[in-house]
Amino acid sequence: MNLKDYVANVPNFPKEGIQFKDITPLMADGQAYSYATNQMVEFAKQQNAEVIVGPEARGFIFGCPVAHELKIGFAPVRKPGKLPRETVSFNYDLEYGSNTLCMHKDAIKPGQRVLIVDDLLATGGTVEATVKLIEQLGGVVVGCAFLIELEELNGRKTLENYEVLSLMKY
Amino acid sequence: MNLKDYVANVPNFPKEGIQFKDITPLMADGQAYSYATNQMVEFAKQQNAEVIVGPEARGFIFGCPVAHELKIGFAPVRKPGKLPRETVSFNYDLEYGSNTLCMHKDAIKPGQRVLIVDDLLATGGTVEATVKLIEQLGGVVVGCAFLIELEELNGRKTLENYEVLSLMKY
Repeated sequence: MNLKDYVANVPNFPKEGIQFKDITPLMADGQAYSYATNQMVEFAKQQNAEVIVGPEARGFIFGCPVAHELKIGFAPVRKPGKLPRETVSFNYDLEYGSNTLCMHKDAIKPGQRVLIVDDLLATGGTVEATVKLIEQLGGVVVGCAFLIELEELNGRKTLENYEVLSLMKY
Repeated sequence: MNLKDYVANVPNFPKEGIQFKDITPLMADGQAYSYATNQMVEFAKQQNAEVIVGPEARGFIFGCPVAHELKIGFAPVRKPGKLPRETVSFNYDLEYGSNTLCMHKDAIKPGQRVLIVDDLLATGGTVEATVKLIEQLGGVVVGCAFLIELEELNGRKTLENYEVLSLMKY
């Protein structure tokens, strides 16, 4: 199965000059969605992941099914103000402005083996923040799985000490 | 398994007087998360659902694993500006202000049997908007599944013509 057949390239979204990779056609196709998810499940097994972590909202799209398939837990990474109990947070710069991500303090147990799942590896800002949050909690990042990697943005350089799986490269 | 054992009651979040139901402990426990998801899967089978729809972000937490387990598609309901292609949208009132939700125009095929999945049924505003979007696209809502129902907010009255499953009532 060629997963790229299920990705729509949308020019000039969210702004002029950007080719947005729309994964909703892939999600709409039960066979393609399941095929992609199962490749992440295999990677999670190889890495002996004990818990899946995914940033909202699109990290939930693959991360939650991977956790379900393996009957392991899922810990969400969310924007400020969403998680009701005590959190750790990490701030990082964007092209314009900055972003903050949070996890519950008890989301990861020290020493726990964590797989990060997200839909897209672009510049790597989100995944780097996610790694920092997990490590701040004492977790061990055993891998990062992405549906799509935008190679020219070179996000992989932020992950050179980690195992990375990407199912499609552009 | 008593799912309520895995829900944390957080007083005064997000504001004074509200008892927030925090489902992250349930998601963190692979057995509990899987048990809850599988009850929604059984309901989806009974209702012969052909596609799952869930509103961001928390509707993805159960909706995506249900779709994966059944190898059927998942169509996201998102806030404005997130979906890159042509959308339908629905605006509804909140206690203060209003909210708009969107779906891609091609997210549902006419006549397709749709199960809506979300974590919480409160006043029912979100699910009602979701029903309107699906029906605008010609879909048939065959049921709505929630992890938690807050009975005193009476959201079920907005769904009196639909089959509703809720796994926990408060």
